[in-house]
Amino acid sequence: MALSEFEIIDRYFRPRLPDRPEVVIGVGDDAAILRVPGCRDLAITVDTLVAGTHFSDDAEPEAIGYKALAVSLSDLAAMGAEPLCATLALTLPQADETWLERFSGGFFHLASRHALDLVGGNISRGPLTVSVTAHGILPEGGALRRIGAQPGDAIFVTGSLGDAALALEARGGSHIEIAPYTHYLRTRLHRPVPRVAQGVALRGLASSAIDVSDGLAADLGHILAANAVGAVIELDRLPRSSALQALPELPRQWELALGGGEDYELCFTVPEIHVDKLGPDLSGVSITRIGQIQKRGGLRFIHPRGTAFVPRFHGFRHF
Amino acid sequence: MALSEFEIIDRYFRPRLPDRPEVVIGVGDDAAILRVPGCRDLAITVDTLVAGTHFSDDAEPEAIGYKALAVSLSDLAAMGAEPLCATLALTLPQADETWLERFSGGFFHLASRHALDLVGGNISRGPLTVSVTAHGILPEGGALRRIGAQPGDAIFVTGSLGDAALALEARGGSHIEIAPYTHYLRTRLHRPVPRVAQGVALRGLASSAIDVSDGLAADLGHILAANAVGAVIELDRLPRSSALQALPELPRQWELALGGGEDYELCFTVPEIHVDKLGPDLSGVSITRIGQIQKRGGLRFIHPRGTAFVPRFHGFRHF
Repeated sequence: MALSEFEIIDRYFRPRLPDRPEVVIGVGDDAAILRVPGCRDLAITVDTLVAGTHFSDDAEPEAIGYKALAVSLSDLAAMGAEPLCATLALTLPQADETWLERFSGGFFHLASRHALDLVGGNISRGPLTVSVTAHGILPEGGALRRIGAQPGDAIFVTGSLGDAALALEARGGSHIEIAPYTHYLRTRLHRPVPRVAQGVALRGLASSAIDVSDGLAADLGHILAANAVGAVIELDRLPRSSALQALPELPRQWELALGGGEDYELCFTVPEIHVDKLGPDLSGVSITRIGQIQKRGGLRFIHPRGTAFVPRFHGFRHF
Repeated sequence: MALSEFEIIDRYFRPRLPDRPEVVIGVGDDAAILRVPGCRDLAITVDTLVAGTHFSDDAEPEAIGYKALAVSLSDLAAMGAEPLCATLALTLPQADETWLERFSGGFFHLASRHALDLVGGNISRGPLTVSVTAHGILPEGGALRRIGAQPGDAIFVTGSLGDAALALEARGGSHIEIAPYTHYLRTRLHRPVPRVAQGVALRGLASSAIDVSDGLAADLGHILAANAVGAVIELDRLPRSSALQALPELPRQWELALGGGEDYELCFTVPEIHVDKLGPDLSGVSITRIGQIQKRGGLRFIHPRGTAFVPRFHGFRHF
């Protein structure tokens, strides 16, 4: 006989909970109860992965469970918040025990790394859709926002850009030779590491921050719009992995780094006065200065020869 | 050209926000920021509606938007929490502007009734799925829980039971004559009123509470299991609407009242010492004493003739 919703929760989602002191009541009642300590703010964000849209039908269940949480934790990281707890809304075509075991394994693999509590869930029958609402905690008023960037601020990114887009292109049969980097690129696409410690380290230093989910140009564009400013990006400063640098055409490397989605790195701005406080990395992840906020609106790209460059791409559109 | 996710949010979900003081940052950044006042707990719950599973393909978009929020607010009500804010994960086959206008109209109709803030959202392309994570607020330690019912406690329910199940049966072409009650029953099924004020009024009075989403017998069963107790229900006390009473067979009325899901009434237990403090209604919604918690395990039904009754049903199963 098929598993009931309650049996699924008991078997795959209840026993693996950490137990944060802020979580007064976890899974098992009509709602969870959270007690946020004084002088702390709570950050809340929701993200959804849909089969056929965000992952292919042959995606590994572990990777779906991992990434569904990772994309929400990336949003928390962009606010400078530490993960606290999450709710999971899981819609499934059928209750396949092997799939559930693997999916929950991927989810809790990442959750346990951040001592994140799963405090609520809903399991429905229907086309495979995974929605996670993640809650993070941070000092009162300490959130990194999109608003705050000023002309003159330096623009930084964590890690490297364009890897997830390259992995997608290679999978699409575009005859890109990525053989030596297959494992690396797949990991970058399917198991992005949310830059949580980096976001926390940027509190009080960064003037604005966003996570790079739709591509650097699109996401930096949100910061520019929120502050009515512009920016210039120096193309030869864009951090590119060995895998991306193996692409024969340099302009194509830039386009993937600027336009490719799903990198889940952080893009942040830092007032010049704080730049010296930053080293070459934040908690073990490299950071790279790639440009500057300018008073003049628009986003400009400077070619190493000093000329302007117009990339061929536009940000990822959901519809 | 189709609407982008950002255009959809701007047009249909951003402008209609109330502005609770607890919401420091709402829609428009990587995450919302909530500041919960001291001595307050936060209740969190998630529910999902899936096309084809929870509503038919011809369901009115307003009703989908309304009900997606209502079912989560019902969970908050069962905890005694007042709605504060919610996130909405909406997966859509296409960005149909008329549909979005109507859906968001239904959602905000209910949201505004409770001054609830929409603080985050995600819009994806895929089969129609609506997931709402609702957040409520309540005095520290004041939550109504499933745990707490003691032998001897009286069992109550709000409103009437079985109407949603009757509406579903009638729609299924079971030749039930409901003509005079069509509008009433459809409203009960598609626009359930979450018993928020009633849940708040029960703080400090009820020893346990749950909302009736899977049918009274199934949901009361969760209270019994959580407390390792049993209960007896007197069938002639089950509150039945005129619509349900129009069904010719009395046992069928009881079965719908006990086994039918989606009523979204509250079932709660009250220690005998507090029963006198309850009137015939809570904030304008009738309450009915239907039975008693007993030390002996199991759920028993007493026929008006004093004999035991075994209903033909089992609780709603999602798989």
